[in-house]
Amino acid sequence: MSGKPRVEIEYCTQCRWLLRAAWLAQELLTTFEEELGGVALIPGTGGVFEVRCGDKTLWSRKQEGRFPEAKELKQRVRDEIAPDRSLGHSDR
Amino acid sequence: MSGKPRVEIEYCTQCRWLLRAAWLAQELLTTFEEELGGVALIPGTGGVFEVRCGDKTLWSRKQEGRFPEAKELKQRVRDEIAPDRSLGHSDR
Repeated sequence: MSGKPRVEIEYCTQCRWLLRAAWLAQELLTTFEEELGGVALIPGTGGVFEVRCGDKTLWSRKQEGRFPEAKELKQRVRDEIAPDRSLGHSDR
Repeated sequence: MSGKPRVEIEYCTQCRWLLRAAWLAQELLTTFEEELGGVALIPGTGGVFEVRCGDKTLWSRKQEGRFPEAKELKQRVRDEIAPDRSLGHSDR
């Protein structure tokens, strides 16, 4: 166990978004291998697709009206947990 | 957030076991869609591959000397969180 920040991805099981959530979990864990303490996949219902870090919501499909691209999700995670870090091509 | 039990899979990043951990996370979330509150992917080092539920270790690669098959991991998770549940063909 570590004190590093953890991210949660809550996905709607009825909408079958597990694979999408798992994909983004792997994107985040690969990019933030040193910074993240873990990514949890949380089953939900009712069309939920939310990415949270602590008590902060980094992406809500209901608010944004769409899913995040990997690049923009990484930018939001970076801004939250490692604001000084460059994401290379994902920053452009 | 729910009070359902959560599983953690800690994997060694140096050994590149993320994909394996993510595969097993999806197996568990699909099989225990109603019972599990989530599965967390936790980066580790030093050849670790551990599956935990609360403070109980369900699989440790160091102790077992190998990785779990999906079937036997599901049996252990079932025994922990839903002992009365049949796993169908994964029980045979």
